[in-house]
Amino acid sequence: MNDHPFDLALALRAQGAPAEGRYQGASSAHYWNMVGPYGGITAATVMKAVMQHPDRLGEPVALTVNYVAALTLQPFTLVARIARTNRSTQHWTVEVTQVDDQGQPGVVVTATVLTAVRRLTWRQIDHPMPVTPPPEQVPLAKLVDGVAWLDRYEMRIVEGALPQIWDGKGEHSRTLLWMRDRPLRPLDFLSLASISDLFYPRVWLRRATRVPAGTVSMTVYFHASQTELAAAGTDHLLGLAQAQVYHDGFFDQSGQIWSRNGHLLVTTHQIVYYKE
Amino acid sequence: MNDHPFDLALALRAQGAPAEGRYQGASSAHYWNMVGPYGGITAATVMKAVMQHPDRLGEPVALTVNYVAALTLQPFTLVARIARTNRSTQHWTVEVTQVDDQGQPGVVVTATVLTAVRRLTWRQIDHPMPVTPPPEQVPLAKLVDGVAWLDRYEMRIVEGALPQIWDGKGEHSRTLLWMRDRPLRPLDFLSLASISDLFYPRVWLRRATRVPAGTVSMTVYFHASQTELAAAGTDHLLGLAQAQVYHDGFFDQSGQIWSRNGHLLVTTHQIVYYKE
Repeated sequence: MNDHPFDLALALRAQGAPAEGRYQGASSAHYWNMVGPYGGITAATVMKAVMQHPDRLGEPVALTVNYVAALTLQPFTLVARIARTNRSTQHWTVEVTQVDDQGQPGVVVTATVLTAVRRLTWRQIDHPMPVTPPPEQVPLAKLVDGVAWLDRYEMRIVEGALPQIWDGKGEHSRTLLWMRDRPLRPLDFLSLASISDLFYPRVWLRRATRVPAGTVSMTVYFHASQTELAAAGTDHLLGLAQAQVYHDGFFDQSGQIWSRNGHLLVTTHQIVYYKE
Repeated sequence: MNDHPFDLALALRAQGAPAEGRYQGASSAHYWNMVGPYGGITAATVMKAVMQHPDRLGEPVALTVNYVAALTLQPFTLVARIARTNRSTQHWTVEVTQVDDQGQPGVVVTATVLTAVRRLTWRQIDHPMPVTPPPEQVPLAKLVDGVAWLDRYEMRIVEGALPQIWDGKGEHSRTLLWMRDRPLRPLDFLSLASISDLFYPRVWLRRATRVPAGTVSMTVYFHASQTELAAAGTDHLLGLAQAQVYHDGFFDQSGQIWSRNGHLLVTTHQIVYYKE
């Protein structure tokens, strides 16, 4: 067992026969956010259950995670079920349940996953990597103290850092940054799922106002095979995120993640709750 | 009962007590695509089940539909289950099962839905409606004969029509069009869910090559309340769609839908299978 905090956080113990897809796990203090785990680690946990299932077909193509309620640091139960296996695709539903602080059991995460056996086809990237200085020329971001998961990532922000002055004078919602695991860890579908949630709420940047905000649902599309991920290794990834519309308590944000050599590995989308 | 083909297509008969969320329905020939129903009508069916459930809280905010297997014209069973009701949000899981042509029952659709009671907050549209001629100045598109669902929509394509010559010389994947139900029908969350899938596979435009392609998963974020939808009424909506990356059998496409007065009603994303 790898003792990287990421792998420790994702440890799932099978309950019953492995093919039943029933696991027990627990949230990790190393990826704690303010009132629950970092959303990315939850997304990676869902993916981990699918990846370690003995009947999995192919590699991840799509993941939707719904953050139904905040997880506590107590153990949780995760059930990964194969809805259907087709010739080259497989559809999964995943549900995480947990007993809350008042002793009541309830659903905390719902998710769907698509895996597929990919075949070599015509390829094209229509959203090329933005022109940007290499990570070696971008200083390490100074992040907020006391938020554990922020220490699990190295971030070098080219544009769109967290506002230093909350004066309500925001103008755009665009962040461009180099990012990777800290300590370093070779990229795989689990860490890619996790890092897809790294972009902080766009509403903070757009408004330069720190209103309460949290991801309610995230969708991640993977555009790479394990081969491309292995090639990216422990190198920096370039991330871009931006919002489109804010309306009465919810806004969307879209992101793209490229490997340094310009492969668009992930396109991702979120709907985020905000107050005021 | 409204006798618009859209409402007839979405008819769901409760099996047991309404609060159980178990319904029977059947695909409609009026929204038939080539090897199954138009994906939009399936998305709307999922939403219909949630909307008519007696315990629903609030209005739709997010919908993810996974097209697990092609539906036939036979009856199907749909189960809509409340995963959790929070103070102002509610999470749903939906599953559709059907007996296939060989008499085997199986899952054909999985979905998750988020509904919420919205509160008036700061609003902002960062992706403004493209400047475009009004629908009255854009001719009706000539569409493919013999595909039933295409007759259910009025489309006026400003840019990015289906290629007339399949010469492999595509250059972009962008389509901009005015669109609305045919016959006219006042906009609601059901028709908005359906029209979100209207954009044909971007790979056809990008490559000017008609390879087999089909949506595998679609996510729709709603940025409007029933008030804004009622204001849109039966007027034209402006749709924009574009792909970002095509890789070994799957590409993504993103879309935006504005009301004529510039409200960004929907942002939507798909992962689409393609061959070759």
